[in-house]
Amino acid sequence: MVKINAYQVARKAHVSPATVSRVLNHRSKVSIETAKKVDEAIDSLNFRVNEDDDNKHLIIVSVPELTNIFYTEILEGSKAAANAANFKLLIDQTEITDETINGFVSYIDELRVYGIILLNQLPTKLLNVLSKHTRVVQCCEYNIESNLPAISIDDYAAAKLATEQLISSGKNKIAILNGPHSFKYSRERERGFLKALSENHLNYNEDWNMGLPAISYDIAYPIVSQMLNSFNRPNAFFCVSDTLGAAVISATRKYNLKIPEDISVIGFDNTVLSKIISPSLSTINQPKFQEGYTAVELLRKSDHRKNHLFLKTELIVRETT
Amino acid sequence: MVKINAYQVARKAHVSPATVSRVLNHRSKVSIETAKKVDEAIDSLNFRVNEDDDNKHLIIVSVPELTNIFYTEILEGSKAAANAANFKLLIDQTEITDETINGFVSYIDELRVYGIILLNQLPTKLLNVLSKHTRVVQCCEYNIESNLPAISIDDYAAAKLATEQLISSGKNKIAILNGPHSFKYSRERERGFLKALSENHLNYNEDWNMGLPAISYDIAYPIVSQMLNSFNRPNAFFCVSDTLGAAVISATRKYNLKIPEDISVIGFDNTVLSKIISPSLSTINQPKFQEGYTAVELLRKSDHRKNHLFLKTELIVRETT
Repeated sequence: MVKINAYQVARKAHVSPATVSRVLNHRSKVSIETAKKVDEAIDSLNFRVNEDDDNKHLIIVSVPELTNIFYTEILEGSKAAANAANFKLLIDQTEITDETINGFVSYIDELRVYGIILLNQLPTKLLNVLSKHTRVVQCCEYNIESNLPAISIDDYAAAKLATEQLISSGKNKIAILNGPHSFKYSRERERGFLKALSENHLNYNEDWNMGLPAISYDIAYPIVSQMLNSFNRPNAFFCVSDTLGAAVISATRKYNLKIPEDISVIGFDNTVLSKIISPSLSTINQPKFQEGYTAVELLRKSDHRKNHLFLKTELIVRETT
Repeated sequence: MVKINAYQVARKAHVSPATVSRVLNHRSKVSIETAKKVDEAIDSLNFRVNEDDDNKHLIIVSVPELTNIFYTEILEGSKAAANAANFKLLIDQTEITDETINGFVSYIDELRVYGIILLNQLPTKLLNVLSKHTRVVQCCEYNIESNLPAISIDDYAAAKLATEQLISSGKNKIAILNGPHSFKYSRERERGFLKALSENHLNYNEDWNMGLPAISYDIAYPIVSQMLNSFNRPNAFFCVSDTLGAAVISATRKYNLKIPEDISVIGFDNTVLSKIISPSLSTINQPKFQEGYTAVELLRKSDHRKNHLFLKTELIVRETT
């Protein structure tokens, strides 16, 4: 990336350098037309702010929700990588939306942030705004239309493997507990699940395909209870998160069904929860520490900027399959 | 608190204002003697840096470890309070020690932080340095020698209540799984535990008083297994964390002992884990959200600066007692 300064942007956009600075730092104080002219000039020059101004060595990790332990294990990896490289790492929980983006980028500029790691998927439009203000790496969830660097896993292959584990343990009526389809992981894991069913000539029952509005024990528990209480009930559950697997275990216990004899369960992520609960939960290990670590490394190496990297997952067989 | 500027400190310490600034911002570049002179002048004038300079409205929460879900629920409360007051909240995982304190306060100054919430107990010396640079509130763990504001619970009363719950369920051989004695919670909960035993004329067996080096499932599991496998084994466990309670449940299951018939267990904190595991864990509810929320409120109201506040806990009876 060629380094270009704000004067060149100003000349290109036919505005003053002060206006360029205002667009970048106090966007709300500039008319939409002016902001658009400056944005276009920036795009055409491939300009990035703060390219020379990253003495802070400050990295922000934007996290959607910390109460999901999945994220905290990723943060451990990012923290280790930041420490090793003498960077400072801070965690931000702001939900980045059309409404909050202006305040957010002002903040990024004021703190002179070196780069940001996104653990949530953002729309292309917001990614474009953000990447004009700082380096951006997407981690786990990412926008498949964006060329910004991303580190993730092959959700399709992992879900296929998990479903095959249930099939090989002799189960033939398999349900899926999924998250919202707006997420890449949700669409890809469903695809892997369906592929495993069709390759093994098993029927697909759409009543057993549950897309939950959030990864939540409290939402999953009554839904699973209802499925277990029906005349035609599944004998296995593929859950896209260990938390949902815990809900299946609790509900199965309520109906005095045996795990894994009556009901098999497999989770996803291999969080500490999957090991702690009884019976311990079979799951797919997602290399969370490495994902967090690699995200920091990608941020520091801007030559990797167009790469989408995928780390390997593995099957962890415990007591529920 | 009277507002005093760096010039008055300089006059008092017989140094230049630039030296005062260096001590505050780049301590490592100043001789130990000079830093000491300036510190003493600051102390005698009751001076605080950035008193007029908190336009950032930035609050930092210093967290010892995010993989402990206890902390993430506290952070939810702090986030809500910061949002409501239009403050920005960032989470920092730096371990604040004699070695890291200089770099840390430089950072606090550069980012012009409004205040810091500490979720870990710091030695008086480090608290004194930190509180010269920004507002400080201690949350959950706190230094009992310090006058800095703190929000916590009555660990003694809560532990006594938990132990009495085990006794009232008919158990008389009660073990405690505790954390390191360096923490206030550890000493106070042990005191409450012992008081409940003596009030109920139960023997205290010091082999059943286990101080673990960390709140860790992996450390607790083999220790509990060994206790359950011994000739004279406890029939109840008071655990100072739900994570340790989960270890007791797993180990009990391994030895084919029944909960709560053979072994009763009670945890502490009422994290989401205590509800999710099977059987669900009786525990002490710590008002985590309110603690995090109140910490931000205390930070914003400097007239509360000498208060130590305590929030109420409650007993949650589930399947393990």
